[in-house]
Amino acid sequence: MENFEFYSPTYFVFGKDNENRAGEFVKRFGGTKVLIHYGGGSVVRSGLLDRVKASLDREAIPYVELGGVMPNPRSGLVYEGIDLCRKENVDFVLAVGGGSTIDSSKAIAAGTVYDGDFWDFYQGKRIEKALSVGTILTIAAAGSEGSPDTVITKEEGMFKRGASGDAVRPKFSILNPALTQTLPAYQTAAGITDIMAHLYERYLTNSEEVEVTDRLIESLLLTMAHEGPRVIADPDNYEARANIMWAGMAAHNNMCGVGRSQDWLSHTIEHELSALYDCAHGAGLAVTMPAVFTYELSHNVMRFAQVAVRVWGCQMDFAHPEVTAKAGIEAFRNFLISIGMPKNFEELGAKEEDIPKLVDVLCNGDGRNGTISGFITLNEEDCTKIYKMMV
Amino acid sequence: MENFEFYSPTYFVFGKDNENRAGEFVKRFGGTKVLIHYGGGSVVRSGLLDRVKASLDREAIPYVELGGVMPNPRSGLVYEGIDLCRKENVDFVLAVGGGSTIDSSKAIAAGTVYDGDFWDFYQGKRIEKALSVGTILTIAAAGSEGSPDTVITKEEGMFKRGASGDAVRPKFSILNPALTQTLPAYQTAAGITDIMAHLYERYLTNSEEVEVTDRLIESLLLTMAHEGPRVIADPDNYEARANIMWAGMAAHNNMCGVGRSQDWLSHTIEHELSALYDCAHGAGLAVTMPAVFTYELSHNVMRFAQVAVRVWGCQMDFAHPEVTAKAGIEAFRNFLISIGMPKNFEELGAKEEDIPKLVDVLCNGDGRNGTISGFITLNEEDCTKIYKMMV
Repeated sequence: MENFEFYSPTYFVFGKDNENRAGEFVKRFGGTKVLIHYGGGSVVRSGLLDRVKASLDREAIPYVELGGVMPNPRSGLVYEGIDLCRKENVDFVLAVGGGSTIDSSKAIAAGTVYDGDFWDFYQGKRIEKALSVGTILTIAAAGSEGSPDTVITKEEGMFKRGASGDAVRPKFSILNPALTQTLPAYQTAAGITDIMAHLYERYLTNSEEVEVTDRLIESLLLTMAHEGPRVIADPDNYEARANIMWAGMAAHNNMCGVGRSQDWLSHTIEHELSALYDCAHGAGLAVTMPAVFTYELSHNVMRFAQVAVRVWGCQMDFAHPEVTAKAGIEAFRNFLISIGMPKNFEELGAKEEDIPKLVDVLCNGDGRNGTISGFITLNEEDCTKIYKMMV
Repeated sequence: MENFEFYSPTYFVFGKDNENRAGEFVKRFGGTKVLIHYGGGSVVRSGLLDRVKASLDREAIPYVELGGVMPNPRSGLVYEGIDLCRKENVDFVLAVGGGSTIDSSKAIAAGTVYDGDFWDFYQGKRIEKALSVGTILTIAAAGSEGSPDTVITKEEGMFKRGASGDAVRPKFSILNPALTQTLPAYQTAAGITDIMAHLYERYLTNSEEVEVTDRLIESLLLTMAHEGPRVIADPDNYEARANIMWAGMAAHNNMCGVGRSQDWLSHTIEHELSALYDCAHGAGLAVTMPAVFTYELSHNVMRFAQVAVRVWGCQMDFAHPEVTAKAGIEAFRNFLISIGMPKNFEELGAKEEDIPKLVDVLCNGDGRNGTISGFITLNEEDCTKIYKMMV
């Protein structure tokens, strides 16, 4: 195990009706003027936005609001939010929504107190200072509710890039599984896929002797494998939603990723798909992961065999571990298809003829120099092969 | 799953040599005058205390020191520490040691800023305010490095009781697995047992639909079952020590205990043993748990069968689940014996003739009214039977 530091100071408030306590927690964490940031119609239609406003009113905390966050959140709205926060002297950004809304909120929180262009953070500058952020989560997926990370897409060039810093870790996150019950099945499944991707990206490591984090990751994958189909079959199953929601947080606050190198190639390769086609990130991952894993398999057959046996219940073929390793990838792929995820470019809405363009942006865009690295290192030829496997 | 709040804001610094950064972290978390609190000779002899002092010197942070913490830490030294902190205007208590030292430090930190008798906290009063606490952990066991809990024994009556409050959660905890390599095998094994007890106490729940926390607990039990024997066979195995150390923290910061009722009967029943005989808490638990679990088995056979299958690799006897459930308890008992833990009163140094006295203090001492409750409720007759099973 490698040396590490771990810090997860977010105050989690989990369970039914807790969105009505948003004002209480904004106050506890020092907010005096709030930006309520959200996406589109469902937060408004469901009455959630009104309940949040009412809870701020009860604490006499003034607020302004900015809606319109889209999936794969854009830099344009971030600039708008930064201007609004500066003009209105906002000191607390309250995200009401999923990962996109939270990521956009983090970008606004960091950008408001930064003299330069906020995009600097998405080109590698660490976020050191930000307004306070709180979240009311409406979809279990991105794990942004408990992470220091944010991903934004820049319209010019459609670059989708990440930034990070403890300053944008949410001060509190309210997780009410009931809020996720009205999600369309496709979004629920995409969220499940994203959570499992966060686990696999940590599982695929070149660090040795990491039993405790291996086991933690497997436990969360097992949870998802059990609860995923239950919630797809019965969207109103609060208990399954609850287990998925806590697993989603635990999958990404890095509790189970510390002290080990991580992969993230599937995310990197997928980001170009959701940036170009505006598909759901989780759906893109469902198509990307089996191809990337198959390409990575020979790098460490035993690691893929281990997850096949421990998570997917495959029988170990001791004479031919690669058979077991492949069976595990196939089991995961079938699982993703079974919950309604796309299995190839066509179902995702991606096009084979775009592969050269995808590869070029992936390997050379925005400061990269021809390769991307994680569990293994890939050049343009490798990435072309991987995208072709997904057709 | 039940509604819950979860907050674990401790900054963890994990890995080799990090004790030399103690001063850096005291400074980061606002300490200006430190009490270094520790136990006995090994912290001094190993040079650890000198390294910690040197790191404070480098940051020009003044300190006073108070050694002498014993296993099952006593109230007498806590009073002494409180007096010293008040006299010296200490604002940061730095624990260098194991759970006993950390628990004593938390008691001092809370007592220093409290007008009444610090023992009030151990009779049910919530700790709301305290000096800052930091830790440098030297044994993986109690989990106090990441918890809001502290257990102290009051000399008058030898009452061993717990207190809790976010105010005494460590601001930072330095976990260097190498510091645990010099521990005697017996102490290492007692630590392993304590960690596994923290997991079982959370596992034995009356809450339903808690798949994610069940799985997390199982993953940590599997880690301990794998790494425990390795570290007993090879005390210098840094990697096994590292996996155990992180598992020990994760077992007790309540990440895997949220949203579910918990047991804690084994701890409650054991506390009287370590209070009376001053045995290692983990050793007491090794004798206590198999008896308590056997007594609890009929309350929920399937829960014991589940841990038997998932953790101990027992084959499920679908016609007779209680056979599997019992096999799991037996496997755990054999595991504890295999790492060198005592299996009965005699090996622990406890006496059958003390049982009436143990039961009386357990069920009626310090404000209790004849029963203790957890996974099930036990009266004096039940507790007598359980202690007799341990003979």
